[in-house]
Amino acid sequence: MYAVEVRDHIMIAHSFRGELFGPAQRLHGATFVVDVAFFREDITEDGVVVDIGRAHDALKATLGPLNYRNLDDVPEFAGKQTTTEFLSRHIFDRMAQACRRGDLGPGGEGIARIRVTLHESHVARAWYEGPVSGA
Amino acid sequence: MYAVEVRDHIMIAHSFRGELFGPAQRLHGATFVVDVAFFREDITEDGVVVDIGRAHDALKATLGPLNYRNLDDVPEFAGKQTTTEFLSRHIFDRMAQACRRGDLGPGGEGIARIRVTLHESHVARAWYEGPVSGA
Amino acid sequence: MYAVEVRDHIMIAHSFRGELFGPAQRLHGATFVVDVAFFREDITEDGVVVDIGRAHDALKATLGPLNYRNLDDVPEFAGKQTTTEFLSRHIFDRMAQACRRGDLGPGGEGIARIRVTLHESHVARAWYEGPVSGA
Amino acid sequence: MYAVEVRDHIMIAHSFRGELFGPAQRLHGATFVVDVAFFREDITEDGVVVDIGRAHDALKATLGPLNYRNLDDVPEFAGKQTTTEFLSRHIFDRMAQACRRGDLGPGGEGIARIRVTLHESHVARAWYEGPVSGA
Amino acid sequence: MYAVEVRDHIMIAHSFRGELFGPAQRLHGATFVVDVAFFREDITEDGVVVDIGRAHDALKATLGPLNYRNLDDVPEFAGKQTTTEFLSRHIFDRMAQACRRGDLGPGGEGIARIRVTLHESHVARAWYEGPVSGA
Amino acid sequence: MYAVEVRDHIMIAHSFRGELFGPAQRLHGATFVVDVAFFREDITEDGVVVDIGRAHDALKATLGPLNYRNLDDVPEFAGKQTTTEFLSRHIFDRMAQACRRGDLGPGGEGIARIRVTLHESHVARAWYEGPVSGA
Repeated sequence: MYAVEVRDHIMIAHSFRGELFGPAQRLHGATFVVDVAFFREDITEDGVVVDIGRAHDALKATLGPLNYRNLDDVPEFAGKQTTTEFLSRHIFDRMAQACRRGDLGPGGEGIARIRVTLHESHVARAWYEGPVSGA
Repeated sequence: MYAVEVRDHIMIAHSFRGELFGPAQRLHGATFVVDVAFFREDITEDGVVVDIGRAHDALKATLGPLNYRNLDDVPEFAGKQTTTEFLSRHIFDRMAQACRRGDLGPGGEGIARIRVTLHESHVARAWYEGPVSGA
Repeated sequence: MYAVEVRDHIMIAHSFRGELFGPAQRLHGATFVVDVAFFREDITEDGVVVDIGRAHDALKATLGPLNYRNLDDVPEFAGKQTTTEFLSRHIFDRMAQACRRGDLGPGGEGIARIRVTLHESHVARAWYEGPVSGA
Repeated sequence: MYAVEVRDHIMIAHSFRGELFGPAQRLHGATFVVDVAFFREDITEDGVVVDIGRAHDALKATLGPLNYRNLDDVPEFAGKQTTTEFLSRHIFDRMAQACRRGDLGPGGEGIARIRVTLHESHVARAWYEGPVSGA
Repeated sequence: MYAVEVRDHIMIAHSFRGELFGPAQRLHGATFVVDVAFFREDITEDGVVVDIGRAHDALKATLGPLNYRNLDDVPEFAGKQTTTEFLSRHIFDRMAQACRRGDLGPGGEGIARIRVTLHESHVARAWYEGPVSGA
Repeated sequence: MYAVEVRDHIMIAHSFRGELFGPAQRLHGATFVVDVAFFREDITEDGVVVDIGRAHDALKATLGPLNYRNLDDVPEFAGKQTTTEFLSRHIFDRMAQACRRGDLGPGGEGIARIRVTLHESHVARAWYEGPVSGA
């Protein structure tokens, strides 16, 4: 199995509900360094998993609506806990859609799986990995 | 599949037996930067794989008896080669126990797999990954 | 010149005022990975710049009041732009005070300079360096 | 499953053909930081996946013919696009051969899988993972 | 003294002349991860050393003419050894010019020094630091 | 001012004396990832601060007698606390000697300063910087 992984980042504010979260119940924030890996059984005729330039562009387009936002005010996330795990899945869903829509160009049609990793500090990170088809 | 990974470290002395190990047969030591990843099919109602604070605490509790030790003098390791691979498994076993015991709190009961990675330098690392149930 | 550097981190929310800041005028947030370096002309009789355990504790004590906060609501920062540069200096001032107060224990009295570095992402960071005496 | 991973690097020139590659159609180059992970179901009597010294040596031997080369002039690569993905597989094939030939010494015979990761910058990398037997 | 540092990268081909360089006399290449630090005695009224967005843009503009190039064919470098040290200085000169020209916007006029670091691998890097005024 | 920095590592055992060191009074160990930076006012006719290959070799030669050792048993260190700070200076002294002896080849004669950094974990490091001439 082949894979290509690209990196970008977002800076957001949010808060959590419930005592499980301790001080993180207060409004705070995070820089998430985001890695997206695309898995493909074989490489294309051009010798790639996917065009790395388009992969970077698709990731930037996905992150745009989240960047420099207070996630507590994003209607789509109403009633949700925007944990690192939740956001990994959210970005995964958007990247899988971009893939199915053809946004990734040649090679994108053969991508089998995607993994989205969010690094929240030098000592903690989370990720979600699943198939592109029916995430 | 979701995952959350936390990081801590230990500083230990040890030595190996057998010419395979060359100069590492002498008493020497290592800093092991330790990453523990918890894998879960889905996230909890709170939107997490596991409480990240408790994950950090459980890792610290597991590493405590090893930290600032000469592993050649630890009775539990008598007759063992305390290689990076061996220690990855040892820490895995302790973390899986902690998980089965409920030390990780809400979410801990659904953790399917654990992976323990030990970075021994900027050019070498080892890991062990297995199911929590019957490691 | 000798130096010792320790690392910790905070997760905060904040916003900026003025069009220079573009989208960062919105409420957003950041993880700051914080490095504090202590510079000393010579090492102590114990062979250290400063007790590394106390250095970690002093840094944690300094970061506590900032961690998991919306800095826009911290009275001390009223009317200030809490940029990465500003926060580097703020943490520097607190660490220099801790040093002058003797919180760092043996060796702390001879620390000449301190440098505080805040990493805000994998592509940007800021720092402030100055003398402990009268920064 | 156990794994051990070692790191080395190469510095090469190359170019690509086809508009997919944009400016990378021009002769340019890359530093590839190369990680090779060896996976083994269990550890040997010595407590290792593989002798880490021999793993480093085998990687260096594999990278030697590529290092400080213009890959456009390497006969073996004629007609190929030497993408990061392609090179991951090329190095995988050589490492799997070394493994099957016994170059890795004790433990090498039990290695089930190998993964070769090439980091091309701080924001992009690719890898290939497959079974040693008949990749 | 305050500083802000931003990161980008280039991928280039080149070769060296003279036996000092051993195998690097052959046409090969490198990824240079480039950090540019801007030093300023004090922060501006906005609380910054320099607008970090403009700093990123100025760095990208400086790196553009070098990226995806064979430096042996760049007329400006004729007769030069394009070592990591040489390129650190070249990029420094361009960034200092950008600074003196006002490209960095508010705060740029007070930048005292610049440091340009080129990471060529995980085990080697070079940098040049000097005053903006007349380096 | 120009600089070139190279990296290597050692794995050692040691212990400390005195309650300042808490649990580190027990025999334990460390991986030290070692960076050595060479500072030179200008580059040589070849465009370098120093031959990077010779710099790596000189560092390896310096680290050899320390690697895979229990520093408590090294006669030269009798009565010393082999702290990270102390070892930074020890390696600095050896590298400055190598420099003055001409081991670094062309360019070595003009090196003004050296800085030796020892990373002991992902959250702590120490360094010593001084003039080559009469450290």
